[in-house]
Amino acid sequence: MISVAVDAYGGDHAPQEVIKGIEFALRENSDLFVYLVGKEGELKGFIKGFEDSFRKRINIVDAPQVVRMSDKPSQALRLKNSSMAVGINLVKEGKADAFMTAGNSGAAMALAMFTLGRIKGVSRPAIATLLPTLEGQMLMLDVGANVDCKPQHLLEFSIMGYVYAKHVAGIDNPRVAVLSNGSEPGKGNQLTLSSYDLLSKSRLNFIGNIEGDEIYKGRADVVVCDGFVGNVVLKVSESIPDLIIEFLKEEIKRSFWYKIGFLLAKPAFRVLKSKTDYSSFGGAPLLGVRGSCIISHGRSNGVAIKNAILKAVKFSKEKVNDKIESAMEGCFVLKELKGAVRT
Amino acid sequence: MISVAVDAYGGDHAPQEVIKGIEFALRENSDLFVYLVGKEGELKGFIKGFEDSFRKRINIVDAPQVVRMSDKPSQALRLKNSSMAVGINLVKEGKADAFMTAGNSGAAMALAMFTLGRIKGVSRPAIATLLPTLEGQMLMLDVGANVDCKPQHLLEFSIMGYVYAKHVAGIDNPRVAVLSNGSEPGKGNQLTLSSYDLLSKSRLNFIGNIEGDEIYKGRADVVVCDGFVGNVVLKVSESIPDLIIEFLKEEIKRSFWYKIGFLLAKPAFRVLKSKTDYSSFGGAPLLGVRGSCIISHGRSNGVAIKNAILKAVKFSKEKVNDKIESAMEGCFVLKELKGAVRT
Repeated sequence: MISVAVDAYGGDHAPQEVIKGIEFALRENSDLFVYLVGKEGELKGFIKGFEDSFRKRINIVDAPQVVRMSDKPSQALRLKNSSMAVGINLVKEGKADAFMTAGNSGAAMALAMFTLGRIKGVSRPAIATLLPTLEGQMLMLDVGANVDCKPQHLLEFSIMGYVYAKHVAGIDNPRVAVLSNGSEPGKGNQLTLSSYDLLSKSRLNFIGNIEGDEIYKGRADVVVCDGFVGNVVLKVSESIPDLIIEFLKEEIKRSFWYKIGFLLAKPAFRVLKSKTDYSSFGGAPLLGVRGSCIISHGRSNGVAIKNAILKAVKFSKEKVNDKIESAMEGCFVLKELKGAVRT
Repeated sequence: MISVAVDAYGGDHAPQEVIKGIEFALRENSDLFVYLVGKEGELKGFIKGFEDSFRKRINIVDAPQVVRMSDKPSQALRLKNSSMAVGINLVKEGKADAFMTAGNSGAAMALAMFTLGRIKGVSRPAIATLLPTLEGQMLMLDVGANVDCKPQHLLEFSIMGYVYAKHVAGIDNPRVAVLSNGSEPGKGNQLTLSSYDLLSKSRLNFIGNIEGDEIYKGRADVVVCDGFVGNVVLKVSESIPDLIIEFLKEEIKRSFWYKIGFLLAKPAFRVLKSKTDYSSFGGAPLLGVRGSCIISHGRSNGVAIKNAILKAVKFSKEKVNDKIESAMEGCFVLKELKGAVRT
């Protein structure tokens, strides 16, 4: 049995889609136990219709407060009885093996750091996400937790990303790159130029800068950037497939034969959509905190929630955090850099 | 007759594609005269095969040095006889009405600033680019000139973008937004949070923050960001249509009917490609310098070069710079902000 604390009131479509996702997850993994955290009265009503075998694997934990999307992390920290705070606390207390929310990512990050603490050697935990490439997939971090970063933070992201890509995604000696505005070593802003220097001296398999148009070509396995840039890249990427389909629809209206062609090829588009849709990637791990936390997209539907819960299970089972801690102990960084990593 | 100085040695496919683009542009605009700047001996050979009527409208100007893509702006400034420096100087001397390059954008920016100077009231010229949206198009800036910015720079970008969108793209009272990691006012990094405050006090039609997934939905007419973020967004955006087509091709192989469907609808894809392809947008104006300069994509082919040259013609004809200067004189900014704009 593995247990996940789920924030029932996180996300744009909470609690309805969260409840749906939990039902899907319980069906898919018979070893799963869920702590359903939120307004007890309401939640009881929501799971009334569940099969008995599912209801037995749910424990509702009351948490009357809700962290809103617009709340600042500092505001969220004051809400001791929010579904997010109570859920993370269940991990702290050792009751739950992992935590999942589709709520405010900045708040989740702050609460996880405050409640669970950081892994030894990590000063800035980060949100990482897997993205599809022409070659398979790659891990990008940070995608939202840290909007203003220093070079040593990008070094930490690189180490955590390297460990995750190696031990969870199963990539041998993952290639690490810094996202920049040019592939040449001299291209970048203050942050990426200094990060480049720092990474060049590390023992990571650092392949240099990567430009925006190379991310999805699969040239690197781990791409690091600050959380502001990562968030923008992620959201731009998500929006373009829809844009293209809208443009295509306009064009297709122009000819009877285009319409027929589009109808014939339509199933291919559906597969495409699932390949580029965030919901099938199942949530982003928060790397660097002492606990397995998955943050799902704010717009998550039931399927996305399910995938995020199942990823939380895997995150805990794979003991990713222990492996990060070992890596931070110096395996991947030259001795003279240790100070930089730990400040 | 309107004359454009063209950097023959700028861009990944220079000089061949540049020469091709010049031929296309001369054919399309019979009023165009081109100063072809670069290694005279080589260039003579390249235009040998041109029609007489085209050759008469070309003047080769010798410039033996070349600014490389990897050169830092400071290195480029030392190359007094580079095709880029000599071309921009033709504008300074009043011989050419405009300048076009597909070379190193940071170098072009530095040389244009150094040689032509800034428009009164502008401290940081920016590279702006038009992008397609579901509603039409929008202008994004900066997309590469200024990798590290201060809030007053984003205010300047907003004013220049507003003027360009209003007077060149013909949009009445353009909506200006700051690109951020959340649409709420409290979301952003240090730069965008302070820029939000500054823009709120301006007389611009400021609509607040815009997230990455809203850019292409047409919610704003002018989107401002620092040049690092703008560059990354542009390159990510360019790469995704190709990624989608690759994924689709994989899927289409799986069924005979998908193949037939794809073949029937193929022309629609071609139109799509031209709609999202940077080359049809014809280069990005450098806003804020005393001269009409267009920077085309480094990977420009002949068609992209042609469109960039024709955009340089329009930029000059529309007297965009005079209009920016008037706007910077205070039309769009409250008096107490003037200091901030001019520092």
